[in-house]
Amino acid sequence: MTADAAPVTPAPLFGTAVVAGVGLIGGSVALGLRQRFLARTVIGLDANMDVLREAEALGVVDEVRAAPGEWLRGADLVILAAPMRALTGLARDLAPYVNPGALVTDVGSVKGGIAAEMERLGVRSFVAGHPMAGSERGGVTHASASLLENAVWVLTPTESTPLTALSRARLLVEHLGAAPVVMPPDAHDALVATISHLPYLASLALTHMVARDERLSLLAAGGFRDLTRVASGDPRMSRDMVVENKDALRGALTRFRKQLERLEADLDDPEELLAAAHEGKRTRDSLPVVKRSLLPAKFDLVVAVPDKPNQIGAVTQALGAAHVNIKDIEVLAIREEGGALRLGLESPEEVQRAAALLRAQGFEVRGRG
Amino acid sequence: MTADAAPVTPAPLFGTAVVAGVGLIGGSVALGLRQRFLARTVIGLDANMDVLREAEALGVVDEVRAAPGEWLRGADLVILAAPMRALTGLARDLAPYVNPGALVTDVGSVKGGIAAEMERLGVRSFVAGHPMAGSERGGVTHASASLLENAVWVLTPTESTPLTALSRARLLVEHLGAAPVVMPPDAHDALVATISHLPYLASLALTHMVARDERLSLLAAGGFRDLTRVASGDPRMSRDMVVENKDALRGALTRFRKQLERLEADLDDPEELLAAAHEGKRTRDSLPVVKRSLLPAKFDLVVAVPDKPNQIGAVTQALGAAHVNIKDIEVLAIREEGGALRLGLESPEEVQRAAALLRAQGFEVRGRG
Repeated sequence: MTADAAPVTPAPLFGTAVVAGVGLIGGSVALGLRQRFLARTVIGLDANMDVLREAEALGVVDEVRAAPGEWLRGADLVILAAPMRALTGLARDLAPYVNPGALVTDVGSVKGGIAAEMERLGVRSFVAGHPMAGSERGGVTHASASLLENAVWVLTPTESTPLTALSRARLLVEHLGAAPVVMPPDAHDALVATISHLPYLASLALTHMVARDERLSLLAAGGFRDLTRVASGDPRMSRDMVVENKDALRGALTRFRKQLERLEADLDDPEELLAAAHEGKRTRDSLPVVKRSLLPAKFDLVVAVPDKPNQIGAVTQALGAAHVNIKDIEVLAIREEGGALRLGLESPEEVQRAAALLRAQGFEVRGRG
Repeated sequence: MTADAAPVTPAPLFGTAVVAGVGLIGGSVALGLRQRFLARTVIGLDANMDVLREAEALGVVDEVRAAPGEWLRGADLVILAAPMRALTGLARDLAPYVNPGALVTDVGSVKGGIAAEMERLGVRSFVAGHPMAGSERGGVTHASASLLENAVWVLTPTESTPLTALSRARLLVEHLGAAPVVMPPDAHDALVATISHLPYLASLALTHMVARDERLSLLAAGGFRDLTRVASGDPRMSRDMVVENKDALRGALTRFRKQLERLEADLDDPEELLAAAHEGKRTRDSLPVVKRSLLPAKFDLVVAVPDKPNQIGAVTQALGAAHVNIKDIEVLAIREEGGALRLGLESPEEVQRAAALLRAQGFEVRGRG
């Protein structure tokens, strides 16, 4: 291979990205940015040094910082991923250092307050966002780029959000493998009150009924466990989420009570109740299922591929010649400048061997670690 | 091996067992009775000939009958496993033919009505029961003996239930691998109203809110899907279940509304709400998890082992000598007369080969098919 034909890593979407708050979601975004070559450097900002050390050890971020400062001016992407209760304070701490040209976004689950706060702070290029992804297991340890894959990621611009910022935010979300959905902040908050915060309260109310009678927990297997899984999430984060959205949640509770009353009345009208049961099943069965990669992320290797003919062939041939068994292959985030190729391999050792082989041929590669 | 040393299959608990209604639960009970050698003959009774043909083809029952009749007098175990709405009618149809010495039980999810009906019909040896097991996928096709393993199986004797009938019912449940829990019918109905019927109504109310606004279903992934899984069950069975138990359910709804109101008030008292969130998590996380066999039942082979020294060794050595790979082994239902050994093998072919080998040595064996 001549020097001229050597692969050239495509230019990333962002130069320096800062993820402020390196928990489950922040860590997953950081991993997505790194593994999909979306930022040249990913800096993790967190007040907790243990979290930063773990994020660095896990290869979630390239660099870490314990406090905001002048260094932030170099970032052209800033993602606020702190818990809800810390979000406004974090925005205030960061605002003085944010480059006016940087895209700023957040990942909080309630959107009414943060956009107004950013406007007040004079951060113009802000687009509030909410990736609808999560897990009962929080923390950077459980972070994974695949958590965001195919997730709905709501973006909530206000009337004063620049359209250029919105389209950059949309591009970021798409390149992270998620599906952007744009709506006003109050519409988002009403929707999540119904499909997330109300179910949490209902689930909590059910567990409290069981807590008041221990004989119940003996029988409460199966369906009841499914139904109360959301009550098993982090109590403080769940509490903050519903309190932050309490106005919209009260509206959803009122509508929920009406539905329950109607169903209670239908107990004396079995034909009507049967129709309600059919309608419930139809609706439930039509809910979208989010498909994610099935391969464990830790045996993944991502290779940057320039937009030149037969680059995928060059990668697979190099590995095939060395008897590396490619168990899964997927093209990620193709842009005009090229893209990235995710390879699923058999073991961490194979990932290391393949990485060394490809680096020797001039490819840029990234794994989970 | 001399004729004297040949294995003798232990005597089963019951001679002829009749399972009336061969659906998911009835079929699973029938399979349990056969696979664990608890009855010499299992007869499936169902008005639907297609169901009977399928049950026979799947090896769920030994014989089939399309209608009750004099033949029923030969049964010493009768299990009513028809859907709730057909249960009383079935009891009336069968009662004239039931042997007074036979143990009669049912598997319905509401217990108040059936015991009184049986008393009226003069069936003395009746013990109402409710195995707390199920699946969204109904029908004999999905029946499996493992569905009942470790499941809580409530038995609800009345003041007039003979204690001998209760202890036989308890023995039956234990030998099917489930855990019997005894309580009065009205206590059972109040408990299931809270942990099963109320959650179903709540789940239905949530899906109805989504049905009224299609934008919601776009975002309704993850937690919302978990929470509404029970709304995806068979509409008619679910409807019958809640209507049958409507009095207890109304009580549960009243208590649920109180819990919701308290939580709504706590939206203005974040410390109290945090305590409620912690209590909910503690309760949810302490719910029992039902452990079932992980091996697919279809590669299972069950061998009857007499209560003599080294019978398990005789089985494993015979298979080892023929290079049959035993992937899992479990001792089922040991009684004084001996017991049964479940072997997990690698393929249906291995099951057939092992069955032939063991039969040649005088063992009685049963597989899924």
